[in-house]
Amino acid sequence: MSQRTAKPCFEIRRVVEFHETDMAGIVHFSNFFRYMEAAEHAFLRSLDQHLHGVIDGLETGWPRVNASCDYRSPARFGDTLAVRVYIDEVRNRAVRYGFECCVGDRLVASGSITAAHVAITPEGIRARPIPESVRQKLLALMTSQP
Amino acid sequence: MSQRTAKPCFEIRRVVEFHETDMAGIVHFSNFFRYMEAAEHAFLRSLDQHLHGVIDGLETGWPRVNASCDYRSPARFGDTLAVRVYIDEVRNRAVRYGFECCVGDRLVASGSITAAHVAITPEGIRARPIPESVRQKLLALMTSQP
Amino acid sequence: MSQRTAKPCFEIRRVVEFHETDMAGIVHFSNFFRYMEAAEHAFLRSLDQHLHGVIDGLETGWPRVNASCDYRSPARFGDTLAVRVYIDEVRNRAVRYGFECCVGDRLVASGSITAAHVAITPEGIRARPIPESVRQKLLALMTSQP
Amino acid sequence: MSQRTAKPCFEIRRVVEFHETDMAGIVHFSNFFRYMEAAEHAFLRSLDQHLHGVIDGLETGWPRVNASCDYRSPARFGDTLAVRVYIDEVRNRAVRYGFECCVGDRLVASGSITAAHVAITPEGIRARPIPESVRQKLLALMTSQP
Repeated sequence: MSQRTAKPCFEIRRVVEFHETDMAGIVHFSNFFRYMEAAEHAFLRSLDQHLHGVIDGLETGWPRVNASCDYRSPARFGDTLAVRVYIDEVRNRAVRYGFECCVGDRLVASGSITAAHVAITPEGIRARPIPESVRQKLLALMTSQP
Repeated sequence: MSQRTAKPCFEIRRVVEFHETDMAGIVHFSNFFRYMEAAEHAFLRSLDQHLHGVIDGLETGWPRVNASCDYRSPARFGDTLAVRVYIDEVRNRAVRYGFECCVGDRLVASGSITAAHVAITPEGIRARPIPESVRQKLLALMTSQP
Repeated sequence: MSQRTAKPCFEIRRVVEFHETDMAGIVHFSNFFRYMEAAEHAFLRSLDQHLHGVIDGLETGWPRVNASCDYRSPARFGDTLAVRVYIDEVRNRAVRYGFECCVGDRLVASGSITAAHVAITPEGIRARPIPESVRQKLLALMTSQP
Repeated sequence: MSQRTAKPCFEIRRVVEFHETDMAGIVHFSNFFRYMEAAEHAFLRSLDQHLHGVIDGLETGWPRVNASCDYRSPARFGDTLAVRVYIDEVRNRAVRYGFECCVGDRLVASGSITAAHVAITPEGIRARPIPESVRQKLLALMTSQP
């Protein structure tokens, strides 16, 4: 998997913190999932889309269905990570984001998170169609396929 | 602060995990607060006392008021930590636990957590007296003062 | 992806801790990668295989190349999780583990971690063949394909 | 303990992330120690003082001797936390930082971290006097006592 050339739809930057490293001297692999989620949430905020919403009086959310990450090179304490967000697929009730974490030009990790759109109903958590206004915003920002 | 000679009222053991270490090769200091809380919760379970209860129809809990830790020697990946629980003070609406974390005979860290007993009322979170049955159990286990 | 019927080659059990939950009331998805790694490391210890070794005077280790997880149902504070380890592929310089996390009979998450075998050389981190004795142990425990 | 009126010597801002919350819907208490350390490290960087240095050919660092925190009010997902750094005491081989975490005007937590200055010698980790240039910078920024 080589680095993407498409423009990301969103990017955050963060400095690697001491507690995020492990005894191998590099960022622990589990923390990249936290970086990716932080970027996803900042992206949703940028769309004026709250993580938790309300539809027909029911609380809604975006639980994770799948998360995956490929590790390419290490990130270290103090490194400034750019975490880039791509929208790779918009389905009826789910969205799959792609991510790249870079230090300068160097690719550190690339991953994906698939989040389902759900409502908390009296019968439990149930998948629900993504509201049309949100879906249109996501589709408009979807990674173009060359 | 030297090691306690009194018998703890509870003890858990856990093996230090890789993600709990930092680039200095030792357990990150913040994780000892997680170890202490895990021991507190296991202790409460041993008393058949749930972390979250219900009194007069109101949900109750034990939010932290203060937490403190002294670091004496490092713990490393794979070390088996004994985390010992002491009850240092039982007040009307709060309890102060003391903790010691040891690897074998070596003291690694000693700390304390003060937890308030609260109820979630329509007016917000409010301190509430510890139920008498719980208070009596805690008092009976309180660290004896020589 | 349905639950595996093959026997795992290793299993650990752990009780979900309070700090591992998030505001949705369930275990944060990133923590399953820590559970999987803890199970992998306990498995390696059971083989008398240390996480970090030495070959020809060079320090060796198992950095992650890929990690992935499917989330099937939530785990909550106090739940006892069984984390099962499968060996899905043994390559010359890498091994791919499969994992299942269950609460009782209920599948919570299934995932995989691919770890490369590397040595820290004067020229940097370099992939190295898995020592033959370790490779034979892993092959012997590999998940049988029906 | 009421809020400080003195001017802090440094401040960082950060938005509370989802994984930092727990099932009570608020930031888990252990994470404030990570916030405080992140602020301390950013402060040291602002002094052009690296976390890890070299004196007389020996690697130096600032391991924690004590950490403490009082919790005053909750912080929630998406809140912007200001984390303020105070220098409360400069000793020969140690410094004690004070911290306040606020959401707007509201005090969320106040704490302290005492860090020792050490060198990694062939005989092990040994306390070493803080380099005079660093000590002077810290003293100049020390919280004024009214």
